[in-house]
Amino acid sequence: MKAVRREPVDTTPVWIMRQAGRYLPEYMAVRNKVTFIELCKTPELACEVTVTARNILGTDAAILFADLLPILEPMGIDLEYVKGKGPVIHNPLQESGAVDRLTALESVDVLDYVFQAVRLIRSELPSDIPLLGFAGAPFTLASYCIEGGGSKNYVHTKKLMYNDIGAWNALMSKLVDSVSIYLKAQIDAGCQAVQVFDSWAGCLSPADYQQYVLPHTKRLIESVQDHAPVINFLTGNPALLPLQRQAGGTVMGVDWRIQLNDAWDIFGAEFAVQGNLDPVSIYAELPVLKERIKAVLDSVKGRNGHIFNLGHGVMPDMSPEHVKAVVDYVHELGASS
Amino acid sequence: MKAVRREPVDTTPVWIMRQAGRYLPEYMAVRNKVTFIELCKTPELACEVTVTARNILGTDAAILFADLLPILEPMGIDLEYVKGKGPVIHNPLQESGAVDRLTALESVDVLDYVFQAVRLIRSELPSDIPLLGFAGAPFTLASYCIEGGGSKNYVHTKKLMYNDIGAWNALMSKLVDSVSIYLKAQIDAGCQAVQVFDSWAGCLSPADYQQYVLPHTKRLIESVQDHAPVINFLTGNPALLPLQRQAGGTVMGVDWRIQLNDAWDIFGAEFAVQGNLDPVSIYAELPVLKERIKAVLDSVKGRNGHIFNLGHGVMPDMSPEHVKAVVDYVHELGASS
Repeated sequence: MKAVRREPVDTTPVWIMRQAGRYLPEYMAVRNKVTFIELCKTPELACEVTVTARNILGTDAAILFADLLPILEPMGIDLEYVKGKGPVIHNPLQESGAVDRLTALESVDVLDYVFQAVRLIRSELPSDIPLLGFAGAPFTLASYCIEGGGSKNYVHTKKLMYNDIGAWNALMSKLVDSVSIYLKAQIDAGCQAVQVFDSWAGCLSPADYQQYVLPHTKRLIESVQDHAPVINFLTGNPALLPLQRQAGGTVMGVDWRIQLNDAWDIFGAEFAVQGNLDPVSIYAELPVLKERIKAVLDSVKGRNGHIFNLGHGVMPDMSPEHVKAVVDYVHELGASS
Repeated sequence: MKAVRREPVDTTPVWIMRQAGRYLPEYMAVRNKVTFIELCKTPELACEVTVTARNILGTDAAILFADLLPILEPMGIDLEYVKGKGPVIHNPLQESGAVDRLTALESVDVLDYVFQAVRLIRSELPSDIPLLGFAGAPFTLASYCIEGGGSKNYVHTKKLMYNDIGAWNALMSKLVDSVSIYLKAQIDAGCQAVQVFDSWAGCLSPADYQQYVLPHTKRLIESVQDHAPVINFLTGNPALLPLQRQAGGTVMGVDWRIQLNDAWDIFGAEFAVQGNLDPVSIYAELPVLKERIKAVLDSVKGRNGHIFNLGHGVMPDMSPEHVKAVVDYVHELGASS
């Protein structure tokens, strides 16, 4: 939290996206007993995998085990997690007028399993370890609703943006309203900060991000950041960084496609910055991995407000020892930088 | 070719990546009679689809109908185009020492079907319409060889880069040597310029591109550009543009992830620039499509050396009328800019 406030720290703090994930045998032991969505919806299990991963790795923060998409269910999206395939939406918003099928949430009581998990995790974590909540950014959630799953070219999403700006803005507004109360409820339940994931905005040109996405993401972040610091994470296109800055937040999350010092120069010293090791580096042999971590730390040496992370999530077949080594190397090398 | 030399033009010239492709009924009429690889290897048919597409659209250049991967066959790669799935490599370079299985080409006689196609196309095209040849950049070809097909995270490719720099450089050298004589033979057969496609380099950080890719791509381009102008096309990461400039070429090809004027400012006025409409724009209604084309043209108004193109290839379900409209709008709007 000191780094979030850009105060001096003893060593660079680190957490890892998807740190409670399939690469970890302790996670799989829990995961194998239930389905993915059952794990998300059972506070005791979500708590167990969150706290276990944080304790094994020794990270400086825990991130709530949850998923980007369950918030869409009470909004009217028919969501299923298909084994080996990931999330599938059976009623994607593709026909004319489809946006009317989506309901903005006026209450998030139906997502109470998330807030129960937050309270449990908060009670089990050491008091000096912050708990991070999170949600999808409106563009990323809109893309899921429209494409019905992952996408290569975001054709349906962009078609709606280009051809029906009214429907597009209505969709984004409903998502912002809903995600805003969802994040505030996570904070009320005990999260010290929240991350907004715009995992898919990198498919957009700067002009399109500015016109179709920026006003909505900005409104979301503004509505939340009086309650707790917001980490604004956007991946896939370094040319969007000046607009990511305009969208706001306390911490700017950056992927590996740009040097971290260059990204920080674009944001300015008034922002804290989170990132940005290429996650594939974890497959490298340990001395190479260490060099690559050092390069990230060196690029922002002497600046206050760096939170180390990967540029994207851990992958299932990565070695737990190498993931743990990331945390240890950051703590070792960060102390002298 | 005037635009390539950055001389004044009457209107902005335009061609379209994958302009001879599945969206076009006239292409499908030929394609349905043979397999994809037969089409590539039959000069008369490759000529027919190249010339037909150029004549239907009225583009200012034709691009040779060919594929990035057949050059790998005589190098030792077992390549198959699987219906509905695309290219599959049955013997990907993944085991230790695998790079030894790849042979650098000393002659491209075995690819003579490509040069026959070039000669045929050249004889059928109007003399004022340049014919563009092309090949894959070494990183993109190396990724195919190693991953065995498309990839999301390029894990095997990056593992080799990070863990065995000697093998990586040997692989890239073999590819550069082979692609160099392949492109020169295309030029000798009658191409007026050639494009080098680095379709996948956008997954790399600037530091990784600089260390592992730049020296090889630069050597390739230097070896070819005394013979004809080279279009250096790199997609997926605007933070690589300063390094793309270092890799060289006469024309810099740019995708839609950055404003074209910003990209050009990074390259400098001594380069011509090609791009950069988001291809998904073609799904927009015609007035919206026209506005989006105008925005690209306006962003570089008054500069000499702009060749209009999409930021990536045409998709199979796009409307031929809309693709043709791109060409017409560019010619109409470019005349006044």
